[in-house]
Order: sequence, then C-alpha cells, then structure tokens
Amino acid sequence: MPSETSNLPLFLRAAQGLEVERPPVWLMRQAGRILPEYRALRAHFPDFKAFVKNPDAASEATLQPVDILGVDAAIIFSDILVVPEAMGLDYEMVEAKGPRFPKVIENEAAVAALQSGAAAAEKLDYVYAALRQTKQALNGRVPLIGFAGAPWTIFAYMLEGGGSKTFSKARRMLYAEPELSHVLLQKITDTTIAYLRRQVQSGADLLQLFDSWAGELPPAHYRTFAVPYLNQICAAIPEVPKTIFAKGAWFALEDLAACDCQVIGLDWNIPPAFARARVGALPVLQGNLDPCALYADKKSIQLATLEMIRTFGHRHIVNLGHGVYPDTPLDGVRAFVDTVLEYRKDSSSH
Amino acid sequence: MPSETSNLPLFLRAAQGLEVERPPVWLMRQAGRILPEYRALRAHFPDFKAFVKNPDAASEATLQPVDILGVDAAIIFSDILVVPEAMGLDYEMVEAKGPRFPKVIENEAAVAALQSGAAAAEKLDYVYAALRQTKQALNGRVPLIGFAGAPWTIFAYMLEGGGSKTFSKARRMLYAEPELSHVLLQKITDTTIAYLRRQVQSGADLLQLFDSWAGELPPAHYRTFAVPYLNQICAAIPEVPKTIFAKGAWFALEDLAACDCQVIGLDWNIPPAFARARVGALPVLQGNLDPCALYADKKSIQLATLEMIRTFGHRHIVNLGHGVYPDTPLDGVRAFVDTVLEYRKDSSSH
Repeated sequence: MPSETSNLPLFLRAAQGLEVERPPVWLMRQAGRILPEYRALRAHFPDFKAFVKNPDAASEATLQPVDILGVDAAIIFSDILVVPEAMGLDYEMVEAKGPRFPKVIENEAAVAALQSGAAAAEKLDYVYAALRQTKQALNGRVPLIGFAGAPWTIFAYMLEGGGSKTFSKARRMLYAEPELSHVLLQKITDTTIAYLRRQVQSGADLLQLFDSWAGELPPAHYRTFAVPYLNQICAAIPEVPKTIFAKGAWFALEDLAACDCQVIGLDWNIPPAFARARVGALPVLQGNLDPCALYADKKSIQLATLEMIRTFGHRHIVNLGHGVYPDTPLDGVRAFVDTVLEYRKDSSSH
Repeated sequence: MPSETSNLPLFLRAAQGLEVERPPVWLMRQAGRILPEYRALRAHFPDFKAFVKNPDAASEATLQPVDILGVDAAIIFSDILVVPEAMGLDYEMVEAKGPRFPKVIENEAAVAALQSGAAAAEKLDYVYAALRQTKQALNGRVPLIGFAGAPWTIFAYMLEGGGSKTFSKARRMLYAEPELSHVLLQKITDTTIAYLRRQVQSGADLLQLFDSWAGELPPAHYRTFAVPYLNQICAAIPEVPKTIFAKGAWFALEDLAACDCQVIGLDWNIPPAFARARVGALPVLQGNLDPCALYADKKSIQLATLEMIRTFGHRHIVNLGHGVYPDTPLDGVRAFVDTVLEYRKDSSSH
C-alpha cells in the first residue's frame, strides 16, 4: 500500500510504522483542564456526565487542543466509564475525587444482569454523534482517535466501585472466582468490540485501549485475565490501527506485542531501549515523558523532549507517559509540543 | 564467620545468603488487622498514634504474629511517618483513609525549619523502648526487624501531605527545585541513619527500608534522588543486614543490588528470574506472592506458595509482594505460613 499510505496524515503514517519526517505528537488528556478554553466550556456543565453526553460540547473539547496546541491528532472527549454505564452500572463523577459507582458487582446474578454487546453499545449514541461531528469539523486536518477502557480496567471499576489503593476486591475475584471473572470480562469485551466498531463507523481513524490498572496484576494474571481480551478486541477491528496503553505492565510487553495492535504506549517508568528489546522491531512505541517534566522550565522541557526523541530513535509517537496532569502550566505543555513540531531529523537538510 | 553464623536463627542465616534447610517466612504488616488479637488490642487505642507511642502495646502487637502464626521474624510495630513527625511535621491518622499532614513542605524556609539527625531521632524514644521490651520478651525465639521509610517515600509524604494518586507535587519538586529537593532528602537521610542506629542499639537484628512510592519515579530520577540516599543509609550501619523493599522499582534492581544491602524485597509484579538476572547471584531476594492470592482456597494457596519457593530456588526469604491486606482471612494467612514452615527442600532426606 505505499502509494495509498503516502497521502495519509503524519500520525497515521507513524502509527503504521512508515518512515516519517518527524515523530507526531499528542497528549493523553489533552482535551482537558490544562486549557483555559476547556475550563470555560466545562463551567457550563456542573455535571461532568452531562458534558460527556453533549455531542456539541464533547466535539468542541476535542477540537480545542488541535486549534490551540497544534497537536498531530485529536482524541474524542469522553470517559472510559461510559461502557459500564451502558452495561447497566451507573456511575457518578465526584468533583476532585473521581468516579463512584453506587452499585458494584458482587455476585453471579449481578454479572448476569448486565447488558452487553451491541445492545449495550447502542446506548452510546452520544459518543458516535460527537465523533461524526468532530470528524466533519476537523475536515481532514488531523486524524481522530477513538478509545475505550481495557476489559481488566473496566472490570476493576465494576468490582471496586471507584479508584482504589490496592484494587484488592477486583484482584480477589480473579483468585476466588476465576470462572465468573472470565464471564464478566467476556461481557465487557463483547460490549467494547461493538462500541469500538461503531466508533470506527463514526469516523475514528485509530483506536486506543487504556488499561489503567494493568500494573496491579501479577504477570500470570495479566496473561490470563487481560491479554486474551485485548487480543479479541484488536482482532475484531482490522479496519484501523490499534494502540494499547497498559500502564505499569512493563512485564507484559512481549504479550502486548503479540496482540494484533500496531502501537504500544509506554508509561514513564519504562526505558525505551527496554521496551524495544521486549517488543521486537515491529511495533511503534508511544510515550513516554514523565508528565511532571512539564513543571520544569522551558529549556529543561526542550532538552528532555529532544533527549526522549533521540532515545526512541524511530517508530515512535511522542506523548507523555500518562495523561497530562490538570495543573500543568500551559507554557510547559506548549514547550513540549513545540519542540516536537519544530524537530527535524537531519537539520542540515532543511 | 561460618562457625559463628551457624548458631544464628534461620532468618538471619538466610539474610546472609547461607544455605538453609528451608526459606524463612514472615509477612509485611503481619502485626495488624488480620489477627483478632491485634484488633482487640487496637480497640483500647482509638488514636492510632497513641497506640504506636505506647511501648507495651507496640511490643504486644509485634509479638502476636510470632506467637499466633509462628513466623520466622518479628517486625517492630510502628509507622514510617514517625520520622517526619520527629523532624517537625505532625501527622494525623484518619480512620479508613490513611495519614494526613496538616502542614506540608512548600518552600526553602519550611525545609530549613525541619530538625534532623540525632536531634530528631532523640524524639523517637518510644520506638527504642518498644524494641528493647520486645527483644527481651522474644528471648531469642526469632530475630527482630527494625525499619524506616526510604528518604524518597518520606519526602513524598512531606510534600503531598498524605497519599496521592499521582504524587505530582513531590515529583514536581524534583524537576522544579532539584537542589532544594536534595537538601530535604539529605535531612531525611541524616535523621533516618540516626534513627536506625538507635534501633540497632535497642535490639534490631536486621533493618528494612520501605520505599513505598519508588514506582512513581522515572528511572533517571530514582537513580538521582533515591538510590544515593539508600546507599548512604546502608553504608552507615554495617552492624546488621539491610533489606531494601522498593515497591514498583523493577527498573532499579541493578542500582539496588549495588547498594550495601543484603536483601532486596520484590513486589508481586516482578518475576523472580527477572530479578535474579538483574541483581546477580549475590543478593538474597525477599517476596513476592500477590497478597490477593491469600483470598483463594487453602489448596490454591499451598500450590501457589510451593510454586513460588521452587521458582526462587535459593537465596530467598518468603514474604508477600506487599503488606498483607487487612481483610485477608486468617485461614489464608495460615495456609501460606504453614506451607513454608512445613517445606523441606528434599523431602526424601527427612
């Protein structure tokens, strides 16, 4: 496909592992509190969920970082918890605390009661509407990333009812009720596949799976309860490239590389050379500057960003190693993005 | 020293890397809520800090797991946050939430105002009293472990004012004010050295450093802001073996092996073979069963424990990969401990 792919935007060429003039750059959580324009928009929605469910607002939030920062990709403004909600587990977003599920999964009957697959994915029309609207507004400027939580991470929220220091309720279930765990993970997976297919039909050019709590599992459990479901999802949607970002899962890089995904996201703990040795030559790596590096002065940010680009070498999409922290100074974010935008592999040829 | 060491208790022989008849076993947080006797004792002290500061109670809590579970070592009942308190930063223990510091470190003046070294360590007489009392009551049954938080982890609490999802305030300071960070880390280190020396004088047979938030740092920062201070502490106290447990610091195993410590604790993410390849033949490894494995049935716990012992092979102290979770069934804890106590390397010879 070289002749077809050469017209693709930088981000999608890089995601396919093609040689590119510079690595593309975007930030996880770029549509968010770092932007004054986002905070102004958010002020109209005291309820976070009303914001997420409003396609106009979600689309505007998605476009802001493209307009303001000049990043190489947009990622649809949404939340990974819309999936458990669509399956029948309602959540609240508690200001400054995070999500809370009034009901959690406690037994087989609760698992059986959950909706799944296309029937659940149908309830997420507001996401598809936001994607279509954003795609139209982008008008080909940059690609649009769709996303979902990875099944283990959604499972963890469904069992814990929110964030947790140890995720011991969710991890306990894997030991105490492995078969029921697989039933629930399969229902989440079926829903996620249906959801992501609809995202692609609505304009998503690449899909990212966020496995935020990957690092809580021992390697054997990650291999048993996480990887097979990631694999199913990747295999079910061959139309677009897939990125897996499994935070903390340094021990599973070989397993992730064996999935049918094109890009593997790295957190800020993982040295690029370690990751490359584990995943082999093929996968594109995404990441992984420490988000806290953006609290430093401009010069330090530039140096750290250039050093990171040099260390990854090639087959690299620039990002942070985690979502940008909400209190990051906008100047720090700009210094990071601009350093990549201005980067030229061989400055003598320009 | 072979002739001298052969009379040492199992735990200390194993910590020195000597061949032992079976690996010793103890659990991080074994003196705690898993034991009904602990909960009964704790009920007399509505204020957690009053409990910690009462040498009779601390000694009783320390002895309970030795009496009840038959573990191969006692660890003094205390808290890593007594060090920042002794330096001048008071904390509260909020029930079911964890520690909270009403004042945090925000600038150079706050760092300068902290006490350090022997002057701070002097305030921890209640810990030394508890150690002396416990040592006497143990009467040589099993060795007594002393401990402290690692400087980076104490630094993180001092900056954050408690636990945190991202530790971004503490990590921010490393980027924004590296020199002031080193000043604070050195003050914590000086205090920790004085504190641990007094613990050894009071009867501690081995010292463990808990670096609970090690995994939050990028490898380069861990090398700059954590390892040199761990090194200083280990080198300053040659009298007893030292264990470093740096949770999440899989990327720093070589650095830890280069410290003057004898034992390296592993969390449940780190495959034993990975650790051994990184640290070399010499260090003893401690860990690392997933604490959630103890929620399973007895047979599964026995199998998982035996499998772990086989995987580590030798130079191994059995423990969990994290502190035992407070709601772990006591039967699960017993199944784990008993499996190790009954283990024989070569059953045919017994």
